[in-house]
Amino acid sequence: MRILILGGDGYLGWPTAMHLSAKGHEIAVADNYLRRQLCREEDVEPLFETPNLIQRTKLWKAVSGYEINLFIGDLTQWDFVTEIFNHFKPDCIVHYAEQPSAPYSMLNRRAATCTLQNNLMVTANIIFAVHELCPEAHIVKLGTMGEYGTPNIDIEEGWIEIDHKNRKDTFLYPRQAGSLYHTTKIMDTDLLWFYVRMWDLRVTDLMQGPVYGLFTDENINQNQLLPFFNYDELFGTVLNRFVVQAVAGYPLTVYGKGGQTRGYLNIKDTLNCIRLAIENPPSPGKLQIFNQFTETFSVNELADMVKHVGNQMGLNVKIQSIENPRKEAEDHYYNPKHTGLTELGLEPNFLTDTVLAQLMEFVARKAVSAALE
Amino acid sequence: MRILILGGDGYLGWPTAMHLSAKGHEIAVADNYLRRQLCREEDVEPLFETPNLIQRTKLWKAVSGYEINLFIGDLTQWDFVTEIFNHFKPDCIVHYAEQPSAPYSMLNRRAATCTLQNNLMVTANIIFAVHELCPEAHIVKLGTMGEYGTPNIDIEEGWIEIDHKNRKDTFLYPRQAGSLYHTTKIMDTDLLWFYVRMWDLRVTDLMQGPVYGLFTDENINQNQLLPFFNYDELFGTVLNRFVVQAVAGYPLTVYGKGGQTRGYLNIKDTLNCIRLAIENPPSPGKLQIFNQFTETFSVNELADMVKHVGNQMGLNVKIQSIENPRKEAEDHYYNPKHTGLTELGLEPNFLTDTVLAQLMEFVARKAVSAALE
Repeated sequence: MRILILGGDGYLGWPTAMHLSAKGHEIAVADNYLRRQLCREEDVEPLFETPNLIQRTKLWKAVSGYEINLFIGDLTQWDFVTEIFNHFKPDCIVHYAEQPSAPYSMLNRRAATCTLQNNLMVTANIIFAVHELCPEAHIVKLGTMGEYGTPNIDIEEGWIEIDHKNRKDTFLYPRQAGSLYHTTKIMDTDLLWFYVRMWDLRVTDLMQGPVYGLFTDENINQNQLLPFFNYDELFGTVLNRFVVQAVAGYPLTVYGKGGQTRGYLNIKDTLNCIRLAIENPPSPGKLQIFNQFTETFSVNELADMVKHVGNQMGLNVKIQSIENPRKEAEDHYYNPKHTGLTELGLEPNFLTDTVLAQLMEFVARKAVSAALE
Repeated sequence: MRILILGGDGYLGWPTAMHLSAKGHEIAVADNYLRRQLCREEDVEPLFETPNLIQRTKLWKAVSGYEINLFIGDLTQWDFVTEIFNHFKPDCIVHYAEQPSAPYSMLNRRAATCTLQNNLMVTANIIFAVHELCPEAHIVKLGTMGEYGTPNIDIEEGWIEIDHKNRKDTFLYPRQAGSLYHTTKIMDTDLLWFYVRMWDLRVTDLMQGPVYGLFTDENINQNQLLPFFNYDELFGTVLNRFVVQAVAGYPLTVYGKGGQTRGYLNIKDTLNCIRLAIENPPSPGKLQIFNQFTETFSVNELADMVKHVGNQMGLNVKIQSIENPRKEAEDHYYNPKHTGLTELGLEPNFLTDTVLAQLMEFVARKAVSAALE
């Protein structure tokens, strides 16, 4: 299959490109390095340097023998989008091409405007390009579990039947997010759902939880092929941040009471979920939605696990509660359904002490080698 | 009160400016003439010419003695927005500044992009400007009943309590619209609701039905002060279009079966609703939502009324069903609540034969005078 990965330089975009390439698909990636640029501007560079996409695709060719097509440019620009679609003619588009940080989207007005304009115009351009140039193609969109917020009722898988005053209808499950970034994903959903109905598009929306980890089948023992590993408070997700804090001897910083519960998944499972979604496209005019995570943890539970494994490694891990910079419930009901991807065959890689220890030992070696440089 | 009207040149913006000015408020209007420009590009000019805003404000001063402040420019541009807010310092912002045509938003990719970018960036800029420059100000946002679509359950006033698996929570009422224009209004709602929670803004969202009519207390016998009267299929709403078709001797064109039911209101009631909303601001951190219409009609019912009144005037009015260019249910359940504005004191101007005859006679006189030119 011809698969176009938008945002192919990202934490998940690049591992996805290699994974699908290794499975024998014809792959193209597009990126404008927006996330690298924002990390540099805000001085939150990842733990280690990663090669650019020209270097990455060469390395991948050398390791695997597979070619990955490359398009460097800005997907908010229609002429760039048509250039890619006309040249590559995708059967499937995996859409990661968004400003991905919730805290960044809340930094200031310019950051908010960048997030809004980038995320919505890229999504709109993908919709228009598919409609005009490859109307049969399947769009696999990365949404987020954060779109749902923390409602006081069970979270269903994208849709809910509402029984109201003795009449019934089915609607998109209500969405109410805690950051502008997450709100742009809600707006993406509105836009995609409208055009799915209008133009009979085929769209899968993957409501993903926070991802952790570094290692996939494709980058094992190939450090140059590893994804970004951000551990800062803008671009780092919570577990990755805790791992680096533990190794560096900083206390794990828990926002507020730490009762915030979310659904998490290993980066390997992200790749499997994406692949399962690609292999199971919806029929035209259908918006297929899956909740993409494998297990739920509170922030306190994650901190305790990192502390436990860290102390076994001989580290002296401390946990510190700091004032919550976000407006979010720190103690809430959370019961999200996630059976769709399991029914398609997902076999989860759960968060075990071994998985955590492997990640922490790698980060510790990186820290030592950085200190020796 | 200092009231800033964004989109103050529009079908409703200009009558709103005069109405609130006549009530003694300090008024500023802002507009970039986008709608005039789009009508010219698409060759769908209104029934009669209307003066530009410099002429309109001079005429209004001459008639009423009241000054209206004027800002001509593009509200998607942050520097223009800050110029207005710093200069005028509004207590209340009435936000009409959107590309307002559903069919235009569906014309082609450029029209869709214009609608998306204009509507979302103006809404975002208003939110940012209020937060940074006048955090106590009340935003009165024009939404649309079309955001709800035609669900198979009763339409509540903005919010719904969902009882699901023995737990309860209250959410924004589900929204699922029939055009891109209406979808951008849903996206506006997402954005406003997010920032209401985040920054304790005070926002009223008015879910308005299609408006008909021309005459208000401020423009009576002042033809130069009348609003636009579009009767085309892009910018004309259905009843205004039927009136002109009847006078011109064209059959009234009903899309499909004509069973599409919506909530309508007289332009005078729009002004009263806006005023009532301004006089009753929500507390900070609250999104107040009203369904703004006074009575519901199916398209067939409207056509029959115009035919009846037209035939009484000696016209020979015919009704013709044409293929529906939209994807919409032509026969559906529709039971929207609309008590909020009535409870605030709205006294509706209903659609009577007299109201319709007054409008049709005016249009007939305009047609005769145009023919004599």
